[in-house]
Amino acid sequence: MKHVVTVKRRALAANDEAADSLRNRFREAGTLVVNLISSPGSGKTTLLEATIGRLADRCRSAVIEGDIETERDADRIRALGVPAHQVLTGGACHLDARQIATALDTADLLPADILFIENVGNLICPTTYDLGEDFKVAVLSTTEGDDKPFKYPAIFARADVTVVTKTDLLPYLPFDLEAVFEQLATLNPTGTVVQTSSVTGEGIDAWIDLLLARLEAKRT
Amino acid sequence: MKHVVTVKRRALAANDEAADSLRNRFREAGTLVVNLISSPGSGKTTLLEATIGRLADRCRSAVIEGDIETERDADRIRALGVPAHQVLTGGACHLDARQIATALDTADLLPADILFIENVGNLICPTTYDLGEDFKVAVLSTTEGDDKPFKYPAIFARADVTVVTKTDLLPYLPFDLEAVFEQLATLNPTGTVVQTSSVTGEGIDAWIDLLLARLEAKRT
Repeated sequence: MKHVVTVKRRALAANDEAADSLRNRFREAGTLVVNLISSPGSGKTTLLEATIGRLADRCRSAVIEGDIETERDADRIRALGVPAHQVLTGGACHLDARQIATALDTADLLPADILFIENVGNLICPTTYDLGEDFKVAVLSTTEGDDKPFKYPAIFARADVTVVTKTDLLPYLPFDLEAVFEQLATLNPTGTVVQTSSVTGEGIDAWIDLLLARLEAKRT
Repeated sequence: MKHVVTVKRRALAANDEAADSLRNRFREAGTLVVNLISSPGSGKTTLLEATIGRLADRCRSAVIEGDIETERDADRIRALGVPAHQVLTGGACHLDARQIATALDTADLLPADILFIENVGNLICPTTYDLGEDFKVAVLSTTEGDDKPFKYPAIFARADVTVVTKTDLLPYLPFDLEAVFEQLATLNPTGTVVQTSSVTGEGIDAWIDLLLARLEAKRT
């Protein structure tokens, strides 16, 4: 297995190099880049739909969608009049920095004020691939259960922000929000948690404020 | 990237060899082995809790739990009086055949009539690792959305059985069961779909009948 580990380390080093070059590119463009990571079906695209609508008259958004198959998510974003590019990984379990560079070269995404990268639905593998983003967001839906941060600690420790989605379903679920807060406080004491529902709109304003504050901070 | 691909192919070949040896071991023991694969939080452990309770007076069950961190899931199964062994992958995104062999060597799991292997919560990576199982089960919760089979086609094409969980939440969700059936019919025309709710008990009898029929078929 040692050989496999060495090869993986080399692949990650190559990715880090490509990510540094992306970071320079984003700095020059003044673009805030957000890397959204979660399980399949936690509501990343729905959160983006709600976000983009509210950002429309405040700043320019663009989206890169990562999926194994189907253009479905990019189509949902384009329907809102926002530039979106779909990366199809064809089986691969995460996005890498070179795919993001290719997306920027081939699609008309920059200049944008905020670029959202919706990673492949996977709470594990995308965590270790730097995409040149300003920060990672872990998205956790209430329907996934309140034990997830300790079961998948790497992403919750590395994400500056955790967005808890689908809070409208809390009345029907055995989900203990306090238990999630406690796990996050242990794994990531300086992180921020936002509770949202794309159905009721709960928390979307707080999430928008956070994004705009980060954008301002990057530009000053 | 060619080098990485070669190394991965070699790792998969080594896994296939270990899986063949597991398959012989399971055949000799007369044990039916079910490999459960899904996103994090789709309800695999809760389904197993409901299953094991109903199987208790019909046959002997045993469980191998795969997680990155925490013994939580094995503890839940042990609380029901069923032997369970927790494999902690320490970051790895799937179980492999050698981990299953080690679990069998160190824990008192066989003889059992049915051995359930609950894979790491990940809809992608576990798909390609044969664990010597009789069949794979894809678990899809209604809260994940009805677009998942086409977005994650490999597991839904390879799983003999798809269990749709959390049907009790259907009244609160925009989830189109027919759309899921259609995608599954395309990806896996000979597969079986079972709709379940561990809350109301819907579909659990059909799932139990399926397991017992497969056990009988293996032994005759």
